[in-house]
Amino acid sequence: MDFDKLDGLVPAVVQDDESGEVLMVGFMNRDALRQTIASGYATFFSRSRGRLWMKGESSGNRLAVRRLLVDCDEDTLLVKAVREGAGNVCHTGERSCFFRELVGAPVRLAAAGGRRKADGG
Amino acid sequence: MDFDKLDGLVPAVVQDDESGEVLMVGFMNRDALRQTIASGYATFFSRSRGRLWMKGESSGNRLAVRRLLVDCDEDTLLVKAVREGAGNVCHTGERSCFFRELVGAPVRLAAAGGRRKADGG
Repeated sequence: MDFDKLDGLVPAVVQDDESGEVLMVGFMNRDALRQTIASGYATFFSRSRGRLWMKGESSGNRLAVRRLLVDCDEDTLLVKAVREGAGNVCHTGERSCFFRELVGAPVRLAAAGGRRKADGG
Repeated sequence: MDFDKLDGLVPAVVQDDESGEVLMVGFMNRDALRQTIASGYATFFSRSRGRLWMKGESSGNRLAVRRLLVDCDEDTLLVKAVREGAGNVCHTGERSCFFRELVGAPVRLAAAGGRRKADGG
């Protein structure tokens, strides 16, 4: 793994191994990856807290890792996992952190850019 | 969108809107997001080339965006797209950039880690 491109971190995409839903994206450093492998539970490096953080360590909504995939240039991980506990991965209570369409923002961005508006599609 | 956490960039996960397969992860800056919305094709900021890069601009293997989702804290994008051209997204010719299991590495990491030493690296 190449941890040098992003100051010791790589993005780690968590995908539900059963539904295929993309649940969240976190960052791992080398220690977070080690701990993920050793424990079998997705563990990230929290940039805001400056420490390792096992997803669900307080809520119990852990992510049990089934498969770990690496991309072609070895700077990104794909974590195929199953949800434990209540099964909601997002701190808002949603199952996935990606529960909102980028609707308002694109229209504003497109308007500012003077190009055609994004109408979904 | 919060572009401040990562020096003007956000990770953008591309998921095949039909198969659910995670195809690649790139980075977008504000202009790449604008261009993605304006053109309807996934466009990234290439860190190595230091410029915007529409995926498939030379190969024709473009990613037509169907939906754009943003995560809970607005620092990551999920791009639901369909593959155009030959349909192979990875520059290696594979359909997805995530075509390899992290097999050797985890074993080595786990063995080397022993009791999960924190080496700050």
